[in-house]
Amino acid sequence: MIVRDPEVENREYPFATLNSFITPTAEFYLRNHYPYPTIDAQTWRMTVEGRVEQPVVLGYAELRQLPAETITVTMECAGNNRSLLTPKTEGMQWAQGAVGNATWTGVPLQAILTRAGVQPDAIEVIVEGTDKGEIKEPPKPDGEIHYTRSLPLDDPILTNALLAYAMNGEALSLAHGYPLRLIVPGWYGMASVKWVTRLIVTAKPFHGYYQSIDYALWERVDGIPTRVPITTMQTKASIARPECQEEIPLHTPFCINGAAWSGTDEIAKVEISVDAGQSWHPAQLLGEPVRYAWRLWTYNAPPFTRPGFYTIMARATDTSGCTQAMQRQPDRENYVISHVIPVPITVQ
Amino acid sequence: MIVRDPEVENREYPFATLNSFITPTAEFYLRNHYPYPTIDAQTWRMTVEGRVEQPVVLGYAELRQLPAETITVTMECAGNNRSLLTPKTEGMQWAQGAVGNATWTGVPLQAILTRAGVQPDAIEVIVEGTDKGEIKEPPKPDGEIHYTRSLPLDDPILTNALLAYAMNGEALSLAHGYPLRLIVPGWYGMASVKWVTRLIVTAKPFHGYYQSIDYALWERVDGIPTRVPITTMQTKASIARPECQEEIPLHTPFCINGAAWSGTDEIAKVEISVDAGQSWHPAQLLGEPVRYAWRLWTYNAPPFTRPGFYTIMARATDTSGCTQAMQRQPDRENYVISHVIPVPITVQ
Repeated sequence: MIVRDPEVENREYPFATLNSFITPTAEFYLRNHYPYPTIDAQTWRMTVEGRVEQPVVLGYAELRQLPAETITVTMECAGNNRSLLTPKTEGMQWAQGAVGNATWTGVPLQAILTRAGVQPDAIEVIVEGTDKGEIKEPPKPDGEIHYTRSLPLDDPILTNALLAYAMNGEALSLAHGYPLRLIVPGWYGMASVKWVTRLIVTAKPFHGYYQSIDYALWERVDGIPTRVPITTMQTKASIARPECQEEIPLHTPFCINGAAWSGTDEIAKVEISVDAGQSWHPAQLLGEPVRYAWRLWTYNAPPFTRPGFYTIMARATDTSGCTQAMQRQPDRENYVISHVIPVPITVQ
Repeated sequence: MIVRDPEVENREYPFATLNSFITPTAEFYLRNHYPYPTIDAQTWRMTVEGRVEQPVVLGYAELRQLPAETITVTMECAGNNRSLLTPKTEGMQWAQGAVGNATWTGVPLQAILTRAGVQPDAIEVIVEGTDKGEIKEPPKPDGEIHYTRSLPLDDPILTNALLAYAMNGEALSLAHGYPLRLIVPGWYGMASVKWVTRLIVTAKPFHGYYQSIDYALWERVDGIPTRVPITTMQTKASIARPECQEEIPLHTPFCINGAAWSGTDEIAKVEISVDAGQSWHPAQLLGEPVRYAWRLWTYNAPPFTRPGFYTIMARATDTSGCTQAMQRQPDRENYVISHVIPVPITVQ
């Protein structure tokens, strides 16, 4: 694991080691905004409050007895690949490894909301974690805040969201959100709130820090920028090997491998270029498509016949026909890095 | 006039000179975000677009022929009095004079919207000015933006909003928004967009820069901060004379005068303290109440019988019974400075 922050634990997966569909829990990236909270499972409770017919309070044992589901979900940090941006931008300098794929077991969010009874005027559910701290840069709220995100109640994603207590078949670790974390399939990781303690159903639009200031982007509507929360993961292929500046022997076939994912669709194809984007060749997609999970892929590249510096690229196309852009869009600030990223290699 | 910014014209009224209900146009404060735009009244047009039945394009001559209204409105900058905050905060360091009271003549916004025909799913109208520039600090949109604010279509204020082309009985000057500016009675000045060129009726909530990042505050709902646009002016009394550190002669009656205003209600009373808030005495309200206009007031203070340093204060109460707070609320960042502000004087 690559440590990205000495004070608050933030680690990423060494993506070059990618060799399995499921990312081992110990290697799954960690993105924390605050120090780990102290959790006592005996006294821990999750409450459902706000615009509900009947507020609900659930303990850990009780939650684990409710009908459960298991889903396989690829989660990518909205800032993954940030370290590659030029000029340098603010934020954790992630390389490629702020992404992973795991199975998550828990109770559908919808089942909990149904239990509480959502009132007709409700429009969003705010999900609050136990972790908290103070924001340093303005515009910042006064005092401490908890890590919090909301989901619109009419978003189709709501039917797939899970309140998970297990990851890869084992009880969630504290680092991954024990006792309970939200999993929002297809959305960047910032939506999957850890250490969930409160669900607040609300009739007013919520504009919390982590969806209005941070983890938000400007979108031009009629030419006018309006601030919108970051949500859906963009279609993307990421090359595990060769690594950046890896040496490839001359006259020797070699394998290019990686993973590709999409927040909304399946991956239809991954194409590889070994000549900086001049020509493209289909990679082989491994296994079967699993909705919301990445697809591993491999490409057997023909040998290079001349030594020199080469640039390899991978680009994914999803089943909606959407292909990764070659250039980064300028309105994405330091998030949503989903354009085709060139990997320079040396052949000798 | 007191110049507050050398590059972009920002000037405030020397509030100590307050002696008339109407602020002369030449002394009315100027708050600009960008350099003055170049306007040619011959080619200038205002368009009404978006979720309307019939887009409307209006020229200057045409606008001036529509049924007009004149209203008297006190406008205060949301950052007025900022220079008094400790610790110092970011932003234009206004003393007391980023406030003024003027008559405004123009066409009701509602009449223009009715002419275009608002579609049933519309929820807001975005008002765009011609002035534009680039924001410097993140979170900032890419490229230039126009100064823009929106009004919710279901807000009662909408029925009073005016698209004004005259101020104090004369054609609007370029500095005050010629050829057309919005006037939103009872709201801080940031809502009264100058040099209006576009009204965009929208079915989606608008989160523009000047209402989500700037001119917005954190409001805690269920303990969770949510970002809301600054809107209504808070009830406030401001002392014109004596000024800060003015010398008052011993054994001599003196007059304390100023103005008081409220965004929603009339001023019910203004009280004065000459002993740092220990005792309060009613001031005399001058003239008759005019909705959305300030009320001038005066108080004949008894002579001081001992030399020394004294602190005078004024506090307003509106007809809803709301009295100015003695202490500043910590969640207001560098805006909405409406608590009672002590004025230190010297008696000798």
